[in-house]
Amino acid sequence: MPRIDGKRLLADLQHIRGFGRFETGVHRPTFSPEDVAARQWLAGRMAEAGLAPSIDGVGNVLGRSPAAGPCLLMGSHTDTQPRGGWLDGVMGVIYGLEAARAFAEEPAAAGLSIDVASWADEESHYLSFLGSRSFVGQLPEAEIDNAKHREDGTPLRQAIAQAGFAGRPRLTLEEGRYRGYLEAHIEQGGSLETDGKRIGVVTSIVGIFQYRMTFEGRQNHAGTTPMPIRKDSGVALVRLLAQVNDRFAAIAGPRTVWTAGRILLHPGAPSIIPGKAEVLLQFRDGELTQMQRMEEELVRLVAEANAMGPCAVSLETLSRTPPTAMDARLQDAVAAAAEAHAPRGWMRMPSGAGHDAQILARRLPAGMLFVPSIGGVSHHYSEDTAEADLVLGCQVFCDAAFRFLKA
Amino acid sequence: MPRIDGKRLLADLQHIRGFGRFETGVHRPTFSPEDVAARQWLAGRMAEAGLAPSIDGVGNVLGRSPAAGPCLLMGSHTDTQPRGGWLDGVMGVIYGLEAARAFAEEPAAAGLSIDVASWADEESHYLSFLGSRSFVGQLPEAEIDNAKHREDGTPLRQAIAQAGFAGRPRLTLEEGRYRGYLEAHIEQGGSLETDGKRIGVVTSIVGIFQYRMTFEGRQNHAGTTPMPIRKDSGVALVRLLAQVNDRFAAIAGPRTVWTAGRILLHPGAPSIIPGKAEVLLQFRDGELTQMQRMEEELVRLVAEANAMGPCAVSLETLSRTPPTAMDARLQDAVAAAAEAHAPRGWMRMPSGAGHDAQILARRLPAGMLFVPSIGGVSHHYSEDTAEADLVLGCQVFCDAAFRFLKA
Repeated sequence: MPRIDGKRLLADLQHIRGFGRFETGVHRPTFSPEDVAARQWLAGRMAEAGLAPSIDGVGNVLGRSPAAGPCLLMGSHTDTQPRGGWLDGVMGVIYGLEAARAFAEEPAAAGLSIDVASWADEESHYLSFLGSRSFVGQLPEAEIDNAKHREDGTPLRQAIAQAGFAGRPRLTLEEGRYRGYLEAHIEQGGSLETDGKRIGVVTSIVGIFQYRMTFEGRQNHAGTTPMPIRKDSGVALVRLLAQVNDRFAAIAGPRTVWTAGRILLHPGAPSIIPGKAEVLLQFRDGELTQMQRMEEELVRLVAEANAMGPCAVSLETLSRTPPTAMDARLQDAVAAAAEAHAPRGWMRMPSGAGHDAQILARRLPAGMLFVPSIGGVSHHYSEDTAEADLVLGCQVFCDAAFRFLKA
Repeated sequence: MPRIDGKRLLADLQHIRGFGRFETGVHRPTFSPEDVAARQWLAGRMAEAGLAPSIDGVGNVLGRSPAAGPCLLMGSHTDTQPRGGWLDGVMGVIYGLEAARAFAEEPAAAGLSIDVASWADEESHYLSFLGSRSFVGQLPEAEIDNAKHREDGTPLRQAIAQAGFAGRPRLTLEEGRYRGYLEAHIEQGGSLETDGKRIGVVTSIVGIFQYRMTFEGRQNHAGTTPMPIRKDSGVALVRLLAQVNDRFAAIAGPRTVWTAGRILLHPGAPSIIPGKAEVLLQFRDGELTQMQRMEEELVRLVAEANAMGPCAVSLETLSRTPPTAMDARLQDAVAAAAEAHAPRGWMRMPSGAGHDAQILARRLPAGMLFVPSIGGVSHHYSEDTAEADLVLGCQVFCDAAFRFLKA
């Protein structure tokens, strides 16, 4: 069995932490100078590990193994949230690099090979899953042409050019090369910590259905308009959303979550009855049937609100991403490795967040492994994972790859 | 009895409509070039009517009668809402001007006198009730020094200087000069129209209590944070506001109104559980005891929400303006005049909106008369009142003044 080198792993994680350090975390948005420098450093470390590195036309970094034989693709992302955590994304990339090194050093792994990737822009500064979608052949050129930075509006093409990647070909999945895709990530929640476990075997990446509900009322003077003739879109929104929260709680599965993250009342002045209101609503679950049940309930509540009046409510579907099941054989390989290195210290669980693995799963058997997030914190510079968990997670990850390719 | 000249009245209203015309309405914000020109034209018309006009250091226009004997102060405002209606404010000023002319032409009114005012900035572009508060001696210099335009931030002092009014003294209420204050205004609601009445005798100007409720939760990832451990400030806000709407409906008086005009969720992103939420809530009523009952209910619901958790709710009082009763003798004078000119065509009613009369009422007996707003529309350029109602309203207004001063 390949043995990872914990000190080498931690040294690489600490080194790449220096690209964009912010407090105890990292600020390394996609195609920022720090992000580009981190990609170049990564390509160099891949070469030192015996992989053939390249950075493609959308910033994907791919280190290809020269070895023949069954190959596993591993990866995650090295871009970060603004002022985000030091491990979110990059841990999975460095795990892949360390696994490749461990394979190369282990005679029993001769004839097995590992490719390592850093997928560009997992954090959606420009485009959702930019790099992994490009790699699986599901990102048209036109989408790249039209994309802009979500906050400052910089065109994606311009950012790619400034990064020095313009004109390079885009790497795509080589048919028949891989047996599967394995990704490690921090949990980003507190379930492992709460349950006292050190490894999560991901069963599925939850689906997300997202909606915009818009309420049309009549804008009017808040002092001179009697209650019986009002069409207050804010009142209508609050009434319906309270019902949605109650009904969803009644029909939710054990891991269903739902969130209304934004509410807008127009014009938003204290003495004007809101003529128009909108709310963004999403829910997530690992089971498609559960998600369909919730959508049916939502449609029913909106219809009831419309029947009751006085405001018209419209329900617009913004996206409907179904859950992605992780490959059973990869799950079992991770579970077996976890049991070997941390008996009874692991559990199966869905991922509540989205990951590149759900994109790779469209073309390859895909699996994921989680390590605990201290306090469940992520998307904040204070995100962290205990060193012992980082080392254990990488050994389990590497062993799982070995078991999977050997089988 | 003094007789107003309907043609002269309408001609003046149409003339001043030209200062800042916008569609069928007017855009004449306080101290804009159009507003200043309208004030100067008004001063000229006052002089032609035999009044002694002056424009003071905050832009108040006052036309003083040279006649001795009992005097009534009349007025309203010539500034408008942005892209507002053509009558909101200015109608009451021109009614006063026409009443002064009718008094001067009527031998029976010899020995009675009328002063006419246009109070600056009733629409609060810089300061709430700037002109009328200055006139009654309740506007400190420091408040003027610190005031800025509510949207573009222009200092009030700078706007006054650009208008050419800097350095002028501020006019203040001359002790003992007036028997009372009478103001005419469009209704800004649809009650007169709905009830088929042409004159409203205002009984009181409603009080307004305004609050900010703030909900403290915990910001977190909308995918990885299970429902049982969430502290979603948006969910807490929606639950409490739905309860407030239900309870207020149960205890409201016949004319109570309440409005939540603004809701903010922080950070306001679709995939982030809102860590902080706030809502602006106000209610209005003509009876102070009713308003106190509603405040008690609100305090009780907030305490319940805090006891239940998981989010902490704070209730901050932004303002607490009690209702202002209109003087009984002025009410009766308006009612008698209305019955004389439009038998059974009038009704008593509170004002749901604020007016300068509530400021003058701090120093003088004050009364108000309403004319119908077509469709109840105001604060929009399409606001309008039928010509016949404009003429009738002015005659009733003038006659009411005569009856009050004669009594």
